[in-house]
Amino acid sequence: MMLTTYSDENEIFNTVDTPFLHVNKNVFLNNIDRLNNYLCDFNVSFRPHFKTIRSFGALDYLLVDKHSPITVSTVKEAEAIVSRGYTNVLYAVGVVESKLNRIKNLNALGANVSVLLDSVDQARSINKFCEENDCSISALVEIDCDGNRGGLKPNDPLLIQVAKTLDSGQGRFLGVLAHAGGSYSCLDKVSLQKAAQNEVNQVRLAVSNLSKRDISCRVVSIGSTPTAHSYQNLDGITEVRAGVYTFFDLVMAGIGVCEKTDIASSVVTTIIGQNKDKGWLFIDAGWMALSSDRGTAKQPQDCGYGLVATTDGQIINGLQVIKVNQEHGIIGSALPGTINFDDFPIGLKIHILPNHACATSAMHRRYHVFDKVNQTYESWVRIQGW
Amino acid sequence: MMLTTYSDENEIFNTVDTPFLHVNKNVFLNNIDRLNNYLCDFNVSFRPHFKTIRSFGALDYLLVDKHSPITVSTVKEAEAIVSRGYTNVLYAVGVVESKLNRIKNLNALGANVSVLLDSVDQARSINKFCEENDCSISALVEIDCDGNRGGLKPNDPLLIQVAKTLDSGQGRFLGVLAHAGGSYSCLDKVSLQKAAQNEVNQVRLAVSNLSKRDISCRVVSIGSTPTAHSYQNLDGITEVRAGVYTFFDLVMAGIGVCEKTDIASSVVTTIIGQNKDKGWLFIDAGWMALSSDRGTAKQPQDCGYGLVATTDGQIINGLQVIKVNQEHGIIGSALPGTINFDDFPIGLKIHILPNHACATSAMHRRYHVFDKVNQTYESWVRIQGW
Repeated sequence: MMLTTYSDENEIFNTVDTPFLHVNKNVFLNNIDRLNNYLCDFNVSFRPHFKTIRSFGALDYLLVDKHSPITVSTVKEAEAIVSRGYTNVLYAVGVVESKLNRIKNLNALGANVSVLLDSVDQARSINKFCEENDCSISALVEIDCDGNRGGLKPNDPLLIQVAKTLDSGQGRFLGVLAHAGGSYSCLDKVSLQKAAQNEVNQVRLAVSNLSKRDISCRVVSIGSTPTAHSYQNLDGITEVRAGVYTFFDLVMAGIGVCEKTDIASSVVTTIIGQNKDKGWLFIDAGWMALSSDRGTAKQPQDCGYGLVATTDGQIINGLQVIKVNQEHGIIGSALPGTINFDDFPIGLKIHILPNHACATSAMHRRYHVFDKVNQTYESWVRIQGW
Repeated sequence: MMLTTYSDENEIFNTVDTPFLHVNKNVFLNNIDRLNNYLCDFNVSFRPHFKTIRSFGALDYLLVDKHSPITVSTVKEAEAIVSRGYTNVLYAVGVVESKLNRIKNLNALGANVSVLLDSVDQARSINKFCEENDCSISALVEIDCDGNRGGLKPNDPLLIQVAKTLDSGQGRFLGVLAHAGGSYSCLDKVSLQKAAQNEVNQVRLAVSNLSKRDISCRVVSIGSTPTAHSYQNLDGITEVRAGVYTFFDLVMAGIGVCEKTDIASSVVTTIIGQNKDKGWLFIDAGWMALSSDRGTAKQPQDCGYGLVATTDGQIINGLQVIKVNQEHGIIGSALPGTINFDDFPIGLKIHILPNHACATSAMHRRYHVFDKVNQTYESWVRIQGW
């Protein structure tokens, strides 16, 4: 990864064709420090999620050493991470038999890639695969803590059955995992703390139910960016996970987990047209560059397809992207008649803050990363595919 | 591009990890033939849009020879196309000065890349650039035919001014272009024909207004997939454009331009979980594989994030993707209690038909293309970026 030192940021900024993904490295590093510091007060390990970032450039900032835990959502990410010598990877999407061969190959290289499941069928297929291939793959059982995703309810008798199926002599059962998907609809600190406490309580209940049947959990993993910043007590929890906390976004700001000034990534775009009658500005960023994520649609402040900021980072009040086509976006004003078109000449570059950083980052093969304190620029390549 | 012949399609199909983009080449070729045949009855040239496909593998099927016209929505596509020896490219997104250098470089290689604009400022910046760089770039002026995108109204006096600015001695003014963005909200044949006729009428009016000022249009370009299949009379029009007609999708089926059986691309995904209480199936395709496009949301049949089909192409009535996370999707039934879970075991592969083929294709680096008549398989790499 090449680091370029600059004396004038614009010398580099202006050579990159729009639209492009801009990362403010200082904000990114602050976000990482913030969660690390918050979790320091608890006796847990932290297993950041790679899915937002998916870039080697970011990896060393997320992980302390080659054995630091990390979460992924695709086997492709696990392969990339292991290829760089990291060893401790959790593939946290329900696994199927057809993906086990690639995981076996990673473990054969010395990595420890574990998987997630929530059914007896999946547990049996892992047993069968490991026996047929003389290999070891350990698994967490997903706990459904709030009805938003996969997993078993803590009191579901199947939980015992899945754990027992996995553990039939080979110690393949690692423990339990929950993700508070419901926390994304929180809107204040009280509801966040409640969602966080519920996530903790539900996995504790699962652990207790397993324990009554003499099944012990080596790993008790919970997390989501909203809850990870809201825990009060983590007794009995061994690890926390979070992903979008590195970049943050408008959805997270709407939930109240961050301020808009904590948003580290944005899309730089150029004004390519004006329609004064309609009060529209056209930009060269459509859903190809922004994604069509509408995550703020149900929040008190609906940000359309993103808010608008100047190149020095000031949010322009009242403006948002109101429509996206493939390579066009249309900026409109929540307050009609308020756009001063002279302030937005054709050719002007602006930033669009994303609703959902995971979705917006995913549209870019490369991130353009500016450290505004140390005056350095680097380009981070995204790891793509499955 | 490697073509592999197979005797059993499953031998190849089952080696590709899910999720992946599947293209039925026979359906794709039929779609191309259909529009070519329809337009044959008119005295126009056809300038297909590359933005849906963005793949060299598809290019030779779209274009007859190296001088055949093509439309692009990014300079990157134009560069890719010219690198393969094609010459006649229209960059159909409002151009800004910062992109002219790359276009100049393509034209210096012998290509003829023209651009689009709708303001005097853009016209002046092209004039200035061409004079300073001793080069030639010609431009179309965008006409706003239905209030949905950029462009000038046909009666806007600025139209004359922009054309005159471009044409000041150098013949940079090529003609006019319109795109019936409003046709995407049509729902029947009558409204489609009306949208098509309106697109024709609006550019004819623009041409007539220019002609009264002795400004002639060498190119009169119109098109959108819905209108391109609905024209009745194209007198005065020199070329038609369309993009998504190659793959078609659920939005186009909802509009009535195609049948669901004409949809050529789909995402192949694996069932990774079941929630019998909720009536949910989990799949390994979330918005990363499907996109989060909700183009059918306002149509009479809202297809969620896509409809479900078996591997032999039969649509499963009542099922649709009701929720997408990054790498998970949730399939639910419009008719509660109707999923027979035994029919959808963990590990089963199914197809998801996309709302919007342009958006879904954009999530994939590679398309897996099966010719079911000639029993051949090929992999098409997508051209990415800007």
